[in-house]
Order: sequence, then C-alpha cells, then structure tokens
Amino acid sequence: MIPAFDTTAESAARAHLDQLTKPPGSLGKLEDLAAWWAGCRGRFSPGPARPRLVTFAGDHGVTAEGVSPYPSAVTVQMVHNFLRGGAAVNVFARHHGVELVVVDVGVAGELAAESSAAAAFVSRRVRPGTGNFRREAAMTRAEAEAAMDVGRELATAAADDGVDLLGAGEMGIGNTTAAAACLSAVAGMPGKLTAGRGTGVDEAGLARKIAVIDDAIALHRPDRGDAIGILSAVGGLEIAAIAGLCLGAAERRVPVVLDGFISTAGGMLAWVHDPAVLPYLLVSHRSAENGHWGMSRMMGKEPLHDLGLRLGEGTGAVLAIDAVRLAAKVMEEMATFASAGVSGKA
Amino acid sequence: MIPAFDTTAESAARAHLDQLTKPPGSLGKLEDLAAWWAGCRGRFSPGPARPRLVTFAGDHGVTAEGVSPYPSAVTVQMVHNFLRGGAAVNVFARHHGVELVVVDVGVAGELAAESSAAAAFVSRRVRPGTGNFRREAAMTRAEAEAAMDVGRELATAAADDGVDLLGAGEMGIGNTTAAAACLSAVAGMPGKLTAGRGTGVDEAGLARKIAVIDDAIALHRPDRGDAIGILSAVGGLEIAAIAGLCLGAAERRVPVVLDGFISTAGGMLAWVHDPAVLPYLLVSHRSAENGHWGMSRMMGKEPLHDLGLRLGEGTGAVLAIDAVRLAAKVMEEMATFASAGVSGKA
Repeated sequence: MIPAFDTTAESAARAHLDQLTKPPGSLGKLEDLAAWWAGCRGRFSPGPARPRLVTFAGDHGVTAEGVSPYPSAVTVQMVHNFLRGGAAVNVFARHHGVELVVVDVGVAGELAAESSAAAAFVSRRVRPGTGNFRREAAMTRAEAEAAMDVGRELATAAADDGVDLLGAGEMGIGNTTAAAACLSAVAGMPGKLTAGRGTGVDEAGLARKIAVIDDAIALHRPDRGDAIGILSAVGGLEIAAIAGLCLGAAERRVPVVLDGFISTAGGMLAWVHDPAVLPYLLVSHRSAENGHWGMSRMMGKEPLHDLGLRLGEGTGAVLAIDAVRLAAKVMEEMATFASAGVSGKA
Repeated sequence: MIPAFDTTAESAARAHLDQLTKPPGSLGKLEDLAAWWAGCRGRFSPGPARPRLVTFAGDHGVTAEGVSPYPSAVTVQMVHNFLRGGAAVNVFARHHGVELVVVDVGVAGELAAESSAAAAFVSRRVRPGTGNFRREAAMTRAEAEAAMDVGRELATAAADDGVDLLGAGEMGIGNTTAAAACLSAVAGMPGKLTAGRGTGVDEAGLARKIAVIDDAIALHRPDRGDAIGILSAVGGLEIAAIAGLCLGAAERRVPVVLDGFISTAGGMLAWVHDPAVLPYLLVSHRSAENGHWGMSRMMGKEPLHDLGLRLGEGTGAVLAIDAVRLAAKVMEEMATFASAGVSGKA
C-alpha cells in the first residue's frame, strides 16, 4: 500500500522557501525539488537525503537479432568494472558521495563478483538472461514477478538501513530494445517511434531494432494495462527489478530517481502496475534516446537535467540525487529575510 | 596577452574519452566539458580543478527609477548575509566545496564586513554605487577601468594561489537593468528585447526598465565596440569587475564559469574588449531572465544547465564548476576498454 503524497508538507515547504533570502521562485527547479522532497517524505523539512544508487544488471536474448554493436559479454565485463571502480557510474557516485549497490538479477555469463570498496554486490539471478522476445517470451510471468521482488527487496533493505532517497540504474547489452518494446506495449506506438540508437547502432541496426519490436508486439500482443504481462513478453530482468524497486520504495515514502531510458521504462511499468507510485518518481535527465521524451511526457514528468547523456548505469540518477540533496540543504541552511535582517520586496 | 585555446590538448582529450569504458559520446555535454577543460589549460589531462567563486557586489543609481521591487539597502544586507553563510550561494558553495570570495567593488552603504569561515571578504570600492544612467553616466571611464582592474587583480591572485577554475557571481540591486542596457548597447537591440523581470517586477516595473534602457542608450549613444565606454555609460561596477576577471583569468589559462544574466554581461563585455577571451568562458546555465538567451547565442555559447535559476550570486556558476570537476575526474579515473578487459564495438 503506497501512502498518498503529502501535499500539506509540500505546501509548508513552498511557504518556507518564500521566506528565504532570495526572490520567491528564483531557485527554479531546485525549489520544486525541495517541495517534492518534503511531500514524498511527508514532513515539512526532512533534512538532507541519505541516498543509495542501485544498479541492476541483466542480459537480453534479443541481442541474437543484432540490435547492439556490443556483444552480450560486455554486461558481465561491465559488472566487474563497476566492482573495480573503473566505470563512469563509479566516478559519478564517488564524486557525489552516493553509495552504489550492483545487483545481478539476470546476467547470462559467469560472474566472479564480490562486494568491494567501489560497490556492494548482491547476487539474485532469476535466470541467465531473457529469451529472444522476437521469437519467444522474454521470461515467464513467475520470473517477471521474481525479478520485481528482487527490486522490492532492495528497496525494503534500503529503507531499513535509513536510506531515504533511491536511485535506479542498469546495465544490460540489448536493453534499449527491451525498454523501447515496453514503451510500444504501453503507449500503443510502433517501434519506429520508440526505438533509438542505443549505444550507437547504425542505420541498418536501427531498422533491425524497429522490426524486432514490431514483430514482438505482433507476436505477444501484451495487454497495455498488465505490467507483469508486458515484462514477461518483451521486458528485461533489470527493468522488472527497477519496477519493483519503485513500488517497494514508494511504500516506505522513499522517492526514486530514475536514470535514463531503461530505468524510466522500469518506472513506467511500476506506474502501470500501481498508479499511486507516480508522485514518488523523478526523471533525472532527458536521455538522448529517442523514446525517452515521450515516455517522460506520458508520465507527466519533466526531466530535471538535459546534458545529452545516453550511458545509463545510473550516471544521470547520481546527478539528480545530488540536486535533491542540495535542494534539501537550501531548505535547512538558508537564512530567512527576518533572521538575516534583509529587507523584503517593497 | 591571452594565449590561444589549445586545440591539440582538446583533441587528445577527445581521443582519450573514446577509449574509456562507455559508448563514444555517451556522456554528452560532460565530454565537451572535459575536452574544453583540457584545451583551456593547454594540457591533455589537467586533473581535477581547484575552483574559486568570486562574487562582486555593487550598487546602482538607476534604482531611483523604480526598476527593482527591492530597496538598494538589500545589497549591503546580502553582503553581510554572504559573510554569515546564510545566502543561497553559501549553501551551494559549501555543498560543492567551492571557495567563496566576496568583493565590495561598489557598494553604496556602510559595510562592517570582514572575512569569515563562510567567505573571504575583499574591500576594493571604486565608488559607492553608480550614477543613475538614465540622467548621467554610470561612472567615468577611469572608474570603469579601475573596476575592471579589481577583477584582473582577483584573477591574478587566484592563479597565483593555484586556482585553475574561476566562477563569477554578483550582487547588486538594480543590476538586471544595467546588464540589459549593456546588451542593448552591444547588440543594438531596444530595451523591449533585453529587459526582463529581474527579481520580480510587475508589468509597470518592466515598462519602467524598458523606458530607462531606451532613454539611456539615446542619451549616451555608446559605441558598441568600446567595452569601457559601454561600462561607463550604462554598466555596473560589479559588471566591469567581472569583465576584468575574465580577461585576467584567460591570460593565465584559467577558464571562467559565468553565472547568470549579469555575469554573462560581464563576460560579453570582456569579449567586446578582447575577442581572444571567448574560448575561456563557460555559460553555466540558461537564466530565466529575458535577455540571457540572446546574449549567450551572440557569444556562441550554449548554457550548460537549464534549471530555471534567476537568482545570481554565483549559484548557477557553482553547479557548472562542479560539472567541470566531474568531467575532469571522468578523464582521470575511468578505466579504458583495454585496461578493464571490456570488449569494444563489433
């Protein structure tokens, strides 16, 4: 049961922001973040956030269709890179002091992984990669639910640890195709409108992605209101886990910062599953990926940043997490016109 | 003498970025920042930045025309607020670990100010506020040059201290009118196209700003190629100081991150004074102020962030400084495909 967003706390935050030594509204989106943060947490000034980024890794059978310029092996290799601290998300997380947890929810290859100083590692592999959804279901309904449960478990564990702000990231070669197929299923849009260049396919690769998505939707005919059905038909294990993370977090009033296209797809499916989750989700940035803009618009979310990122891993989520933390500090640390003896508007 | 931007170092940075474990270009504007940082510093990988934000305060005689809803006294009050650590810029600078220096280059009122843990204070008052430029020159040419020299002095001192990245911020009630008048002078545009709401004037206040700007340009007829002439006619002491900071910094290969509308006006006048400064300037964000977009376009600068900020003080500059620092760390800390044993593109 997801509690309602607390509009009273949100309004109290807005009223306080207007007392601070700055023209009302002059901190723009940061003021929106501060008020949102209060409304999610259900308290006037919840204090600075204690964030955690959870990056889920999973492989995709659909790579057999030539939808990515990188081999599937890169998923395992990048998980190792995360745990050694050499990936972009490590640099971002270290720079902003955000704790990183990497979860194998469906990697295909062998993984000699353990927690390190760079990242905690959690092994919850539901199955070794999805099926090729152009020809078969990506996974069974039971597997989709199990992957969602992995996300819920991580959310609950985070809340129990005192984490009050979660970021969702992902790693999985082929997963822009899965995310685009999920968007096609929810929005009823053809692959042409949802597929993009991903990590950088050429024109022929993009055409293959579009054909794969259209074929998959025609084959599985997923019900647009059935998130588990969509995930099992054309989803990904990491996408299902992110959906579960969103749902579990919202139950505990922990907002979730979505990274890019794939993470937002997870948030979108959480929203299809339970619309009450929506106020707890933040879209961290406008991904350069084709379908992301429409996905965000459909959810009524304006992305916070617009830096041309298209990497994933949770990189964009880290930037937005830091913005929420700054917004919370504005609430806590700024002087008011009265306390600072500054004259107000004439 | 401003050295040329080092395109060799910039290209070397781009080549290295393409070796890192991410799809080429997938970090978007952060990759542009990393390459720009190398080109400014003239070295392949100059390492993380040691930044400093310099916020110049000055008053404006044109406030007598009713161009701001806040009284001039707020300039002094806010300088005190900066030194006590209660202003927005203090929260931003603390959060991102950026050193803050506050400079009185032209405040009108009495200032019992000294350096504090929150900010260093430098007293270099050229004159106690500008003249009302609707009726008289804002300042003499000698005063404009003296204010520019204050900025140059701060830039040189920073470079001598090992600072390699400067931010420019400002405080001055009435200064959106001065900045808009500078833009009108440089671009030959009427006040209607350059004036905005500033800290929040109503319709009548905006009409007054426009009339003041048009009257001032008609009265002074500044030469659009004469930065010192424009500053003395319709400028501000803090705007002149920011122009000087940009010029002095570029001579030392120290790039300058411009904050919002007023700081960008200072950067614009530095560019009018010496076009060689341009590659060293970064526009930190798209200000919500009306004329800022055209000003940035004229300089060929795409603002980094777009968060609806319209506060000034250096708040937006702090955010962009932190992005440069992150970009520099990406260069330094990420693994390459070779070092991490990650497969490249097929």
